[in-house]
Amino acid sequence: MKNIYLFNEGYGLEKMILGGKGANLVEMKKIGLPIPNGLIATTVACKNYFKNENCLSENMIKDIKEGIKKLEIETGKEFEGENPLLVSVRSGAPVSMPGMMDTILNLGLNDNTVQKLIEKTKNEKFVYEIYLRFIEMFAEIVKGVSREKFVKIKEYSKEKTYKEIIETFKGLYWIETGEFFPENPEEQILMAIESIFKSWNNERAKIYRQLNNIDESMGTAVVVQEMVFGNFNELSGTGVAFTRNPSTGENELFGEYLLEAQGEDIVAGIRTPHSIETMKNQLPNIYEEFLSIAKSLEKHYGDMQDIEFTIEDGKLFILQTRNGKRSPNASIKIAVDMVNENIITKEKAILMVDTELLPQVFNGTFEEADIVGKKFLGKGLPGSAGVAVGKVVLSTDKIKEGESVILVRVETSPEDIKGMSLAKGIVTVKGGATSHGAVVARGMGKCCVTGCEEIKIDSSEEFFTINGERVQEGEIISINGYNGDIYKGAIKLKMGELSEELKEFLEWCKEIKTLEVRMNADTPTDVIVGKGFGAEGIGLCRTEHMFFEDEKIWSVREMIIANTKEDRDKALEKLLELQKIDFKKMLHKLGGLPMNVRLLDPPFHEFLPKTEKDIQKLAVLLEKCPKEIESRIKELKEENPMLGHRGCRLAITFPEIYEMQARAIIESAIECKGEGGSCEIEIMIPFIGGISEFKYIKEGILKEIEKVFEEKNEKIDYKLGTMMELPRACLIANEIAEESAFFSFGTNDLTQTTYGISRDDSIKFIDHYKAKNIMKRDPFQSIDTRGVGKLIVLAKELGQSVKPNIKIGVCGEHGGDPKSIEYFNELGFNYVSCSPFRVPIAIVASAQSAILKRMS
Amino acid sequence: MKNIYLFNEGYGLEKMILGGKGANLVEMKKIGLPIPNGLIATTVACKNYFKNENCLSENMIKDIKEGIKKLEIETGKEFEGENPLLVSVRSGAPVSMPGMMDTILNLGLNDNTVQKLIEKTKNEKFVYEIYLRFIEMFAEIVKGVSREKFVKIKEYSKEKTYKEIIETFKGLYWIETGEFFPENPEEQILMAIESIFKSWNNERAKIYRQLNNIDESMGTAVVVQEMVFGNFNELSGTGVAFTRNPSTGENELFGEYLLEAQGEDIVAGIRTPHSIETMKNQLPNIYEEFLSIAKSLEKHYGDMQDIEFTIEDGKLFILQTRNGKRSPNASIKIAVDMVNENIITKEKAILMVDTELLPQVFNGTFEEADIVGKKFLGKGLPGSAGVAVGKVVLSTDKIKEGESVILVRVETSPEDIKGMSLAKGIVTVKGGATSHGAVVARGMGKCCVTGCEEIKIDSSEEFFTINGERVQEGEIISINGYNGDIYKGAIKLKMGELSEELKEFLEWCKEIKTLEVRMNADTPTDVIVGKGFGAEGIGLCRTEHMFFEDEKIWSVREMIIANTKEDRDKALEKLLELQKIDFKKMLHKLGGLPMNVRLLDPPFHEFLPKTEKDIQKLAVLLEKCPKEIESRIKELKEENPMLGHRGCRLAITFPEIYEMQARAIIESAIECKGEGGSCEIEIMIPFIGGISEFKYIKEGILKEIEKVFEEKNEKIDYKLGTMMELPRACLIANEIAEESAFFSFGTNDLTQTTYGISRDDSIKFIDHYKAKNIMKRDPFQSIDTRGVGKLIVLAKELGQSVKPNIKIGVCGEHGGDPKSIEYFNELGFNYVSCSPFRVPIAIVASAQSAILKRMS
Repeated sequence: MKNIYLFNEGYGLEKMILGGKGANLVEMKKIGLPIPNGLIATTVACKNYFKNENCLSENMIKDIKEGIKKLEIETGKEFEGENPLLVSVRSGAPVSMPGMMDTILNLGLNDNTVQKLIEKTKNEKFVYEIYLRFIEMFAEIVKGVSREKFVKIKEYSKEKTYKEIIETFKGLYWIETGEFFPENPEEQILMAIESIFKSWNNERAKIYRQLNNIDESMGTAVVVQEMVFGNFNELSGTGVAFTRNPSTGENELFGEYLLEAQGEDIVAGIRTPHSIETMKNQLPNIYEEFLSIAKSLEKHYGDMQDIEFTIEDGKLFILQTRNGKRSPNASIKIAVDMVNENIITKEKAILMVDTELLPQVFNGTFEEADIVGKKFLGKGLPGSAGVAVGKVVLSTDKIKEGESVILVRVETSPEDIKGMSLAKGIVTVKGGATSHGAVVARGMGKCCVTGCEEIKIDSSEEFFTINGERVQEGEIISINGYNGDIYKGAIKLKMGELSEELKEFLEWCKEIKTLEVRMNADTPTDVIVGKGFGAEGIGLCRTEHMFFEDEKIWSVREMIIANTKEDRDKALEKLLELQKIDFKKMLHKLGGLPMNVRLLDPPFHEFLPKTEKDIQKLAVLLEKCPKEIESRIKELKEENPMLGHRGCRLAITFPEIYEMQARAIIESAIECKGEGGSCEIEIMIPFIGGISEFKYIKEGILKEIEKVFEEKNEKIDYKLGTMMELPRACLIANEIAEESAFFSFGTNDLTQTTYGISRDDSIKFIDHYKAKNIMKRDPFQSIDTRGVGKLIVLAKELGQSVKPNIKIGVCGEHGGDPKSIEYFNELGFNYVSCSPFRVPIAIVASAQSAILKRMS
Repeated sequence: MKNIYLFNEGYGLEKMILGGKGANLVEMKKIGLPIPNGLIATTVACKNYFKNENCLSENMIKDIKEGIKKLEIETGKEFEGENPLLVSVRSGAPVSMPGMMDTILNLGLNDNTVQKLIEKTKNEKFVYEIYLRFIEMFAEIVKGVSREKFVKIKEYSKEKTYKEIIETFKGLYWIETGEFFPENPEEQILMAIESIFKSWNNERAKIYRQLNNIDESMGTAVVVQEMVFGNFNELSGTGVAFTRNPSTGENELFGEYLLEAQGEDIVAGIRTPHSIETMKNQLPNIYEEFLSIAKSLEKHYGDMQDIEFTIEDGKLFILQTRNGKRSPNASIKIAVDMVNENIITKEKAILMVDTELLPQVFNGTFEEADIVGKKFLGKGLPGSAGVAVGKVVLSTDKIKEGESVILVRVETSPEDIKGMSLAKGIVTVKGGATSHGAVVARGMGKCCVTGCEEIKIDSSEEFFTINGERVQEGEIISINGYNGDIYKGAIKLKMGELSEELKEFLEWCKEIKTLEVRMNADTPTDVIVGKGFGAEGIGLCRTEHMFFEDEKIWSVREMIIANTKEDRDKALEKLLELQKIDFKKMLHKLGGLPMNVRLLDPPFHEFLPKTEKDIQKLAVLLEKCPKEIESRIKELKEENPMLGHRGCRLAITFPEIYEMQARAIIESAIECKGEGGSCEIEIMIPFIGGISEFKYIKEGILKEIEKVFEEKNEKIDYKLGTMMELPRACLIANEIAEESAFFSFGTNDLTQTTYGISRDDSIKFIDHYKAKNIMKRDPFQSIDTRGVGKLIVLAKELGQSVKPNIKIGVCGEHGGDPKSIEYFNELGFNYVSCSPFRVPIAIVASAQSAILKRMS
């Protein structure tokens, strides 16, 4: 094993030897890129240095000098030659490691070579500037001289010549180190390499390694590379280019360049760069060369590249290439195009797309550029993906159809549903990601910002204040549902659409994935949306969401207020008919895809009127006195509604409710069949905690369904199963599996109960958890595999021990989260279900997970 | 194997052969009891009958007849003889089995023997009545003739002679069956035995066996036993006696008897029975015989016996003996006496005591007799064991020291603590067994009825109504904390005391048990009580309960309302001193026993003022405006406080609180040591859900404690551990065990989260669960071994996999529940902790469990 390798000698060696940076350069060299030449002092050399009591051995010095000789031949430049060789020296450990020493540029300069370079470039200023920079860097990095002192010298030297400044710099070096500044480039490079080896053991680096469990004995490599200068002469330049348009994905070179400039000039914005297109005329040969390199790089890395290049004296050098960042829309187009161009496989294309960014493809984004200058008002929580612009409206009844409005409310309630469907976006002061507002907005695919507690709505209901700013009703605001940002004024939107490429991409994902992707759909509209996105059925139909629509809520309230079973039955009869209308529409729209209906889940009080006006209305409707209604509302209040009288517990107290719902579902299915449709029915009981509960409810439902079969003189198939959303259900999953046709994990509630965290209340303390790094991932966003996951695995195993083929799915919010989908797919789940607007994301995530599973 | 065994032949045969009833009679015979003689047709005979196509074989008939012959010789009576033999015929399967056919009495009677019996007894009425009864029973049971028809005949036969009625009875038998009534006793007995065999296969019996998983092939035995008559003549009688006084436990015969009477006469209360003592004079020989039998029965069964006996014509017969029911106090005395009399072992004595009844020994009961005639007002939930009588008071400030009052409130709050401590008992309208009122009352060992929603307190606060009854303040009521009963007026109380026997009994239990029994103690008074009962330390000191005492609450409120860390620190400094006073007192009282302190657990809002008056007071105290206080209170309100900002989550937001508490504990311990005391300190972090949480808090506490050590220049030992009260903590118990010195299971919250049930809210639906038999046991009373238990076992195994000797205990309410204690003992827990007043019960339960564990 040699101490020193040139870039073209190192191919086949590991990153552990060459370091990350070195290995990358060796690869670029191998594929024939015109990169500046160089050599690598390996990690082995570093270890030898430590073994030799932190001293460069004779041998090592010989190897380095030989390496430099070879480099001189390769570059046609020479240390102290007519065409002087200048190099950069950088550390490069096998793993990325902040805390190691920095880069030294322009090594090789001295009073002698400076003159040669001035002769060649005719650019005194340029040469002296890089010389000064070299001395400064070398002194700081190799000898630990404070850079500030050099800066000060420069400040006080405005009147002085470059030569004088250089003398002062060297003087400072002498004062601070007790040594003369090394003029000999060979000496310079030996000192630089040695100090990088040493820096492996500095305090910052050691602590970093401890914190990140990095092997102490690994050592670092050193990369020495020829300097090239874009500001060398008029045939020089520098630029950055993407192999494709990162904004649209078009297959065209996209970038900027400047003649007679260095990279910093473009970054600092001192001069305005030109489009890369102009290079076609200015430097046609180089443009062609670059184009061909860009193509081959794409092929080699199998991805769109972001390339930095420099032209020195008419010669093109590639400095760096990496996978390019791109807009969500572009990411799809690029992936699809690259498959069609035979550059990558479909699998690779699918893995290339970042699912985190996919919502923006469907729900649009702000035009980045247009945010500049807009007044930032404040921040809430991301309630539902998307962006929206509109006039502020503070109460639902003020919304006129066709107007673009943003509804701003303390919190939303079932009465607001219609207003929410008319608004472009919703902002709530209270509530988190599972609040009514957020859940309903997500179901509608509508932008929503929740929990913006800085908003104080004035009691006049004519304006609100936010962080001292007053916003009048009718004023325009712009809101961002991805991050909770709220701006004053209208920001231009870039709205998503289902492009041809996206359709093709989704088709590939569907072919590859094995997990069934269903939708959470509560209305016929949901079904249309979700099916359009490729949903393979309904995984969760929350019947109670139907209850909030239109006038249905009044029948629900009648049912709840009922004092006698008779009164309740009367109200239930009305609801039966109303539910059937919805179910039948949905079944027809589904066209034979499965429909999984969850029976009533929320506690009664969620349905009751909240305003005095509505209490009055209900009293009139039911011919009762408002006091009675109020007292019933009070009676139904709970300390901890999340753990209260809800889910199947309602059906233990009032079995007739679930029986009505089961009847509505089965009657609808039979009638739908009669009308030529086909249906697949699943009925799901929520919040099961014990087996006796399920048996009792099952018996009642089965009896009611048998009655329907007799009345209709026709039978249909259906499955009856349970939601798994309580730890206890998971713990006795074997008992439940005996009776249940499927398990549908309700991971929202399961996470809440397993953690003992009420998601809504957690807003008050979760920020402290995040700030203190105690909770790295929000367990409500991505499933907590260490805790909740253990319960899920246990439940699955217990269930399958009794019923090996029991169908297992997820219908919580995690069903639309890519990380969680990967987890469920690995566990071998049958399906996930998510809101209609998350369906395509779930499809992509399932496909990615299927590919990864196959690969592992 | 014979078909038929006489009682004195069957010894050594199994219950599977003789049936339960038969085996019992054989045993009584064996120990020489004068029981009426008889024979048993075995289950083998029954099976033979089925094998013989449901027909009594020649052989079987022969066996039965031979058996009867032997019986005639034993009894000196004969079928149709001068002294006619009458028998009862009963079914007796190996397991108790309702649904089988009933008893036939007086078999052997016919027109002939009736006359003989009249001659002997000179009691025509008696003989005819039993003859009528026999015909009726025989017809009903053997032939299925409806009993109602016989009853009707009797009703219409008031003018007729017995002979005429008998003729009509037989006529009915003929009409209904087409057969003559069998006059021959041998024929009667064959028919009776056959019909019992047959009844094994009747529908009710079959269904019962299916439901209860009883083996179909088992068959039933038949018991034939000589009839004896207490009303036979003036030398006859009947009675019931306990071998010891079931009310006091005194070792004296206790019972009643009547001459010339049958058992029913005593039960029906037609005649007033005499004390058994009078028998000493009336029938001295029989009294002596009975006394000696009673003693030997006690010895044989090793327990106090409840004996039914009959005297026929001067001859004593024992009809039945069983372990006698006794009062809670008597149960202790009897157990202790029987050990001291060398009748039973200490182990047996310990197992004999029913722990369910023990609370009544300590907390007293109503005088049963005095309940009669009292007006029952209504029922709440059993909040805290005990009984109380007193004047109704509706607000705390009206209570005068020394008065016997019952405090009736909608709910109690920290402000009521003082009033509660003065009241004899507490009634609340709202809240369940974990409500503030119930928890505090249990801590005080005070009777409490909670959740009595029928009570409507008038807004005048001068009276309440309950189920239509009006109760004025000052009126006397009596309340029962065992079952929630509320009565108008004063019921006499029987108050518990720590008798000598009880002390001795508890000593034995302490010797035998292996589980450590600790107390939940929040105040020095608690420590005195619990230690007096034998607690071996504190398993749970809820620091926040100290906060509610006296004026401390105002410093707590100051701390909560604080806007800045500075203000909070100022308030915490005050609290530090206040907490130290309590801790030091408790440590001194403990005298070296371990003290486990749980750091602050409840959400802040529990501490805040609830009345306008108190808000005003706080505002003045803190020099803030009441609006500010109100808005802070509003801010702290939570949707689901049970799952909210509480437990260690408070310490993530405000680390200084736990640090203050840790300092208070450690400083107290060091100072206590300095004063010559010794201490064992355990500090417990509540509501841990993740390991990062615990690590973060641990680090802060450790630092603070190190500071104390430096300041005091002294170190002491202490342990830092976690409550296990969230499913997630159990699931990652291995991670927690790495950092934690012990696990203390908080089974209340663990049950709430595992079931997803808020105990307070469950009041509204749990009754339906019980009524529908869906929840047989209240999981908050006895630990749910099937679900919650699985999590506990998992946590224990995971914890021990990392730290095999990790200390494991329970400090939830289950720590005082005998069934749960048995479970924890079986799992090998180190300790349980319960309220001071439950300590003796836990000691007894632990001892019982230790004995059972040793036996198994």
